[in-house]
Amino acid sequence: MFRFLVAPTGFKECLDAEAVAAGIRTGIRRVVPAAIVDTVPLIDGGEGSARMLAKSTGGELVPVTVTGPVGDPVESHFALLGGTERGTAFVEVAAAAGLSLVPRGKRDPGRTSSRGVGELIAAALDTGAEKIVVGCGDSGICDGGAGALQALGVRVLDDSGHDVGPGGVPLRQARLIDADGLDPRLSEVDMVVAVNPKNVLSGPKGVAHVYGPQKGASPAQVARLAAAMHRWGLLLRRHSGTDFAELPGGGASGGVGAGLAGVLGARLASRFDVFIESTDLDLRLRAADLVLTAEGAIDASTALGKIPSEVARRAKRQGKPVIALCGTIGPGAESSYDTGIDAYTGILTGPVALADAIESAPELLADATARTLRMLLVGRTLRAAA
Amino acid sequence: MFRFLVAPTGFKECLDAEAVAAGIRTGIRRVVPAAIVDTVPLIDGGEGSARMLAKSTGGELVPVTVTGPVGDPVESHFALLGGTERGTAFVEVAAAAGLSLVPRGKRDPGRTSSRGVGELIAAALDTGAEKIVVGCGDSGICDGGAGALQALGVRVLDDSGHDVGPGGVPLRQARLIDADGLDPRLSEVDMVVAVNPKNVLSGPKGVAHVYGPQKGASPAQVARLAAAMHRWGLLLRRHSGTDFAELPGGGASGGVGAGLAGVLGARLASRFDVFIESTDLDLRLRAADLVLTAEGAIDASTALGKIPSEVARRAKRQGKPVIALCGTIGPGAESSYDTGIDAYTGILTGPVALADAIESAPELLADATARTLRMLLVGRTLRAAA
Repeated sequence: MFRFLVAPTGFKECLDAEAVAAGIRTGIRRVVPAAIVDTVPLIDGGEGSARMLAKSTGGELVPVTVTGPVGDPVESHFALLGGTERGTAFVEVAAAAGLSLVPRGKRDPGRTSSRGVGELIAAALDTGAEKIVVGCGDSGICDGGAGALQALGVRVLDDSGHDVGPGGVPLRQARLIDADGLDPRLSEVDMVVAVNPKNVLSGPKGVAHVYGPQKGASPAQVARLAAAMHRWGLLLRRHSGTDFAELPGGGASGGVGAGLAGVLGARLASRFDVFIESTDLDLRLRAADLVLTAEGAIDASTALGKIPSEVARRAKRQGKPVIALCGTIGPGAESSYDTGIDAYTGILTGPVALADAIESAPELLADATARTLRMLLVGRTLRAAA
Repeated sequence: MFRFLVAPTGFKECLDAEAVAAGIRTGIRRVVPAAIVDTVPLIDGGEGSARMLAKSTGGELVPVTVTGPVGDPVESHFALLGGTERGTAFVEVAAAAGLSLVPRGKRDPGRTSSRGVGELIAAALDTGAEKIVVGCGDSGICDGGAGALQALGVRVLDDSGHDVGPGGVPLRQARLIDADGLDPRLSEVDMVVAVNPKNVLSGPKGVAHVYGPQKGASPAQVARLAAAMHRWGLLLRRHSGTDFAELPGGGASGGVGAGLAGVLGARLASRFDVFIESTDLDLRLRAADLVLTAEGAIDASTALGKIPSEVARRAKRQGKPVIALCGTIGPGAESSYDTGIDAYTGILTGPVALADAIESAPELLADATARTLRMLLVGRTLRAAA
């Protein structure tokens, strides 16, 4: 009996990881009805993760109105996990300060603030949570987490002793972190920030340079932001005794990693360790004959630490073949071959508008999976001499 | 060494069969550089066939202005073949009376005429051609070839002894075929009409019922056209002694097959016998490990006698696996599995307008082929136990 492991991430703004896994399973069964199909929907802590975690653990999503990245109120939420994770709150940075919450005309990461993230943390504390996991990814901010800290009672003061304004650029004037007013409940809570360890706060590979442009910064803005992140790193070091400048994950969500670690004492942990280890993925890979992963858009960024490449990396340690099914195929997708993805394919069948493709995504995904299975079966008949 | 046979048809209004074959070869070589790739671009006699035949035989395309299907002049052409086919002219029905020459607002197959086809035949006679091959397919007409015959000197008379007007519906009033004025050169020329043998002139599976709707006829128009084709069949039988009503291929191009056979004595031949036999396809299939065919749009019609299903049918006689690469995947595409196509895949990578997809088709095709090859290679590694 052939054993498939289906380990996809969600298709952003379209299907969550569970729905993607279900579509792929449907397609497999259509071609190999007797197949054993194990599904492991995966999240990375970014957009949609709170919703998925609430659902998959049997917990609940708590709605909160917070200050959005450009200062307007936004309807946000955090998750209270259920089952064995009861007592843990999950705060998704993207739900309070995500890039998709920043109107296209206002995409200036020198101005956008993480304040809403702090407000979500405060709301989570109100529920009596013993542990708070903060998920980074898909953010539209670059303020070093200063806004989140301010929302939790921390003051960030300039030379004249005034609080600096929201956003990353004002941090160039920051001189002192004053944590005397910090919400006292934070000392009782276990806080973990789930990060991409490749993201660092400052230096040439710092978050301003790497993510500033895609968050809407011009080259001049990137330079100002880089200077601000450098200064913020110095203040955090002075405050905590730790140098966060190039610490892995300190640059997560525009420096939220460094800010929460340096002032609140939060632990930084690789997002895959946080979200994938608990799924027993490695064990389940061992039982698989073929691994199917999936992503909304495969492109150059896939190889840079996205879920399909992590799945492939782990699968390859066990010598398992890996295929990716993708909503769209973008520039640089070929680089994903280097991560261990052996082959990938798209799901679209004809010229179509994005909205229509999104609407019919479950069916497109099942159909594409079925076509792919048939292609694999043809491959299996080919002479090995080739 | 692995041997591929690439036997595609063209992507209509996009890439001719040679360009499709070249794109697929490029994609194969990208993944298996040492592969042996035999390419056999195929035509079916429909739209674009004259151009391809002129090119592939080293002949020439002769421009002619003819009466188009709705009566306006259209820039058309026929091919004078070269090489071993010198002396043969190829007349493409679609080039003079194709559906794409009928403006959408005027798609009434009761009115459109095959006159231009007769004008192309006359022009071919002017060149001294010894043989004329008429290619059917992709037409926008349903006049039994009456218009073509009229252009060549035949009269079709009604009860009052007047010539019937253009189009299929007026044939309901036709009473007599008078071939006395027929161009005398036609008796010296060998004429072959390349047809889909499944198309018959009248009866429940007649051309009016099967193709009328897609050529723009309403149910009432279909009924009138069916009556006209029935009557036209009676006249042809009276004129020639042969019953064309349900003769295979008589319904090709809205009855052009029956008309040219019944009045000009043209031979009807299966289009695949005409266009595929000369390519030694069966011999080349024997040498192949894997067959790749292609079509602009795979859908329910593919299984009904389109080139990929003919390629698959022949490949299956020799037990060869067949894959189809398709510009788009439409409703009913799954029925092509029954013809021997083992698997198919689309070439699109993201939401896109048709025009943009057409422009980048060669690259999309090469990329999709490369992805498919990788998928097949994954399949080859899978345990046969599945």
